[in-house]
This record gives sequence, structure tokens and C-alpha cells, in this order.
Amino acid sequence: MKLVLCVPNFSEGRSQDIINAIRAEIEKVPNTKVIYCKADSDHNRLDLAFVAPIKEAKEAAFRATRKAAGLIDMDKHKGEHPRMGATDVIPFVPMGNTTMEECVEAARGLGKRIGEELKIPVYLYEEAATRPDRKNLADVRRGEYEGLKEEVGKNPDRKPDFGPEKLGKAGATAVGARMPLIAFNVNLGTSDLTVAKKIARAVRHSSGGLRYVKAMGFELKERGIVQVSMNLTNYKKTPIFRVFELVRREAKRYGIPVIGSEIVGVVPMDALVSCADFYLQLEKFKKDQILENKLWGEKNEGS
Amino acid sequence: MKLVLCVPNFSEGRSQDIINAIRAEIEKVPNTKVIYCKADSDHNRLDLAFVAPIKEAKEAAFRATRKAAGLIDMDKHKGEHPRMGATDVIPFVPMGNTTMEECVEAARGLGKRIGEELKIPVYLYEEAATRPDRKNLADVRRGEYEGLKEEVGKNPDRKPDFGPEKLGKAGATAVGARMPLIAFNVNLGTSDLTVAKKIARAVRHSSGGLRYVKAMGFELKERGIVQVSMNLTNYKKTPIFRVFELVRREAKRYGIPVIGSEIVGVVPMDALVSCADFYLQLEKFKKDQILENKLWGEKNEGS
Repeated sequence: MKLVLCVPNFSEGRSQDIINAIRAEIEKVPNTKVIYCKADSDHNRLDLAFVAPIKEAKEAAFRATRKAAGLIDMDKHKGEHPRMGATDVIPFVPMGNTTMEECVEAARGLGKRIGEELKIPVYLYEEAATRPDRKNLADVRRGEYEGLKEEVGKNPDRKPDFGPEKLGKAGATAVGARMPLIAFNVNLGTSDLTVAKKIARAVRHSSGGLRYVKAMGFELKERGIVQVSMNLTNYKKTPIFRVFELVRREAKRYGIPVIGSEIVGVVPMDALVSCADFYLQLEKFKKDQILENKLWGEKNEGS
Repeated sequence: MKLVLCVPNFSEGRSQDIINAIRAEIEKVPNTKVIYCKADSDHNRLDLAFVAPIKEAKEAAFRATRKAAGLIDMDKHKGEHPRMGATDVIPFVPMGNTTMEECVEAARGLGKRIGEELKIPVYLYEEAATRPDRKNLADVRRGEYEGLKEEVGKNPDRKPDFGPEKLGKAGATAVGARMPLIAFNVNLGTSDLTVAKKIARAVRHSSGGLRYVKAMGFELKERGIVQVSMNLTNYKKTPIFRVFELVRREAKRYGIPVIGSEIVGVVPMDALVSCADFYLQLEKFKKDQILENKLWGEKNEGS
């Protein structure tokens, strides 16, 4: 069974009726499981995550988009978070043995259907992007709903991948595919913020570090320590243990110890298993040796 | 949902018809999943593993025992592996948030039912044992089928926990509860077997080492190296990383590097997660942060 994690965001964080109606559309589709559903009233935004086999995930995301288009009027929407549509973004994230290519295909298929059947302009982004200038969601969403409404149909750079060159009250939707993001912070035994900032610069991609690391230095004032706060955007290519060891080595150069680390929010199992594999120096370890994988892996497996 | 792993062994490793019939009894019970089924013709023994919710696991094990009793005649059984019954052992192993206490309860409930309904003598062993001299399976099975048949009814020490004091053609069955066993080997960068033997003695319980470690030193002749070969009998109380670090430290005393390790067979996910937790020095990591656990954990969870 090829599973994906789908994390759609909707421009409604206040009306519980609308939130429930959107969630219900997803849960009506068999084999979907909502694992996260959090509305923020300041952002006026609903952040929802569900897991399903690819086909059902596409269907559930389509139904939720249709429902949101009927209930949310972007001409009346206000909220702190950048947004351009009633269903603002729909990223597909590979799980288990699902590939990124399959998620890209899912995003493009869903985008086409939303464009054609719901007449909502769709922009493909991240791994599903058809143009390099649409990889980054912030670029796709530039000007937000109001700005895009003005530009679309005039500026050819803003022609959607699917759907009409015109924004209705449901706005536009970004549909894409991406790796799961891991929020990983390393705490240092010093109160000197400059050390955390130097290490952040050393390890992050933008200033010459590891390819899939974003990093900043922060103070944790209550504890009197500093932290290298990171987002790992592709844990398969830049694994947690390599990031951790690089931070530790850089800290050592200043004589500073690593006193702990933290993973904020959700992490895929294999990101942790790869750390065990690395530190235990395992030879030829296979994922199907994990008891739980025998249960939750492929169906109809032989034995 | 409280899951258990159940690993019954049957005294039949040659007749595919009998093997299939026993397996079918287990698979007939809803929500059971056979994850391993391997017959050894020299041992003349079937090693089977399945996962199920506790109630279904008891039912499936009962039906398999009944079927084996009807098909296997211990008076005619020959095989290298020690055995005392058609269904020789039935251990329950906790999974996920299932406790050892729940497995002990399952073992005792199943043992009672096998004794009463099938008239097969049942001995409770390991964590389910009611007497200290029955903790160890080898002690329970002493004399095997033939020896026990002679002794039972005469020697009060061999009175079964449930069922008659008399062995029929189905023999007797040991029913118990235990932690999963992890086969973990550490490879050393030397051909000197005495080093592996010394380290095995240092880390194993029997000679003063860690509580839940059995260890021996071996040569891997093809590779020209030696290995500390271990069984970890309770990875929650004696975790893999602690064993690994102790072996590494002892090897260092001889100037020998650890060049790799291996996990043979199946390992529970949380045994690996605890290694990631240790080496990454994670603060306050919770198992429900693992994406897969959100899917496969408790049903009806809130979000």
C-alpha cells in the first residue's frame, strides 16, 4: 500500500462549523486518517494533516478543496499568515516506500482536476513545479490573494499550471510535493549567542553548509544557554546524525559542549532508524527487520 | 488496540499439510497476521510468529493448539530440537503499549483453557511462571516428552499448572510471557579470539556484566575478525546502546576498534528509537512524535 501524508492548509481558522465541514469531507473518503487538525484564529488558517493511500489522498484533497471553495470567501478573508486561496496549499509528502515521483504525479493529477472541475487556478510548486521560479512557495504566493487577483491574466509569469487565468472568491491553490520537514535544534552549553550564530552559518546550506539544512542561532534565556535551531528539508540526503555531528564538531572548536537536542513535532520513523544504524555501525541492516514494518508494510507479503 | 506478538512452536517440520493446517487455524481468526512461518525438517519443528490484539491472539493460539493435538502424535515424533508437546511452547511478547502484565495474564488465561478444554498439561514459564524453578524453559522441558511422560503424576515438582497429571499423544505445552529477544553482534578489528571471549565475559550477566545480556566470543574466519555475539533478553532495561558502548570501551582497553555490528532477525522499533534518542542526546522526545505511531497507535485518538 503506497501511503502519502497530505498537509492541506485552508484559509479559515475561526468558524468551527467550516473547519468541521472541511475535515468531514476528508474523513468521508475510506482509508484516510486525519493525524493533525489545528486552527489558528490570528492566522485565520486551518492546518490539517492526513495519511491515506495515494488515490484516496487525491480524492480527499479534491473534496476538501471543493468544500472550502463553497464556504470561504477570500474577498472577506483577513489573517496574518500569507495566503492566496480558500484552499491555500496542498503538499503531498512520501511515506514508507512511496517515492517522490509518485507524489509529484499525485500533485499534478490533483492540480489538473481542481483546475478543470472547480475552475480554480492551480500552481504546482516544490518538487511538482514545472518552472524553476515556482519551486519556492513564497514566490508562487507573492502578492497574496489580492495581488495575484490583479496580476493574473495580465502577467504571463503568473499564468497558472491548470485552471482559468482569473481568480474567483476561492482564490488560487498551490499543489505540490515535498519531503517531510524535521525541526531539529541543538542546545549548547554556553550563553554566548555569537557561538550559536557562527555554528548556524557553518552548517546551513545558504552560507556553504549542508545541502538540506536551514539554521539560525537563538538564545534560550530561561535556561541561560543558546541553540542552533534548524529545519532539515530532506532527511534522506542530509540525515539528522550528520547534522548533529557537524554541529558538535563546530562547537568543539570553541570548547563548547552539546548539552542536548530536540526534535519539534513529527519525525518519520526511518529518520530515527538511520541514526541508530549510524551510531551502532550496523552492517547490512534492512528496514524489514523492524517488527512493526512486518505488520504495517506491504500487504500480502510472503513469509 | 493492545497488540501482542505470539511465537508458538509446533513439533512438525516435515508435513506441509500439517503445517498449513496449523497456520490456517491462526489465520482464520480475524485481525491476526502471521509474520513468520518457518519449518525445519532436521528439528522437525515449526516456528511461527503472528501479531494480533490480545484476545484474538489467545483464541488463535488455542485453535492452533487444538489442531496440532489432533494431527501430531508425540509417540512417533523424532527431531533434534528439545520438545515435550505437539504444541511445544507458546510465548506472548508485548508490543507497543501492551504491558508484560497483560501478556502474563494472557498466558495464564490461555494455559487454563488448554488444560481444561483440551486436557493437555500446561506449564507456565518465564514471566508467567508461578514457581521460580519454572522461569527457565529448559528446566520445564527437562527430559523432553518421553522423560516428562514417565515423571508426571509421580514427581510433585512436575505437576502441571493446568490440565491433567498425565501426558497423552499431544504431550505437554509451555505457555509463557517474555520480552522480545534481540540478537546483537559486535565485530572487532582483530583476529584474536581471546579478546572477543574476554569482552563477552565482561559484558554478560552470568559473569558479572549487564543484567539482560548473554554473550559469547566467536571467530568470523572468512573475514579474519572476531565477534562478540549476544542475546539481549530485555532491551528496555538493558538497551542496545549501553551494550554497544560497553563492548566498545572494553575493546579499547586492548587497543581494538569496533568495526561494525549487526542485528540478526527482528528488532522492535523502539529498541532502535532509544538508540537515536541516546546518541542525539534528545530532550523530552515522545514516541508519539514518530509519524508512523500517529497512524498505528491507539485508535480514536484526539487531535
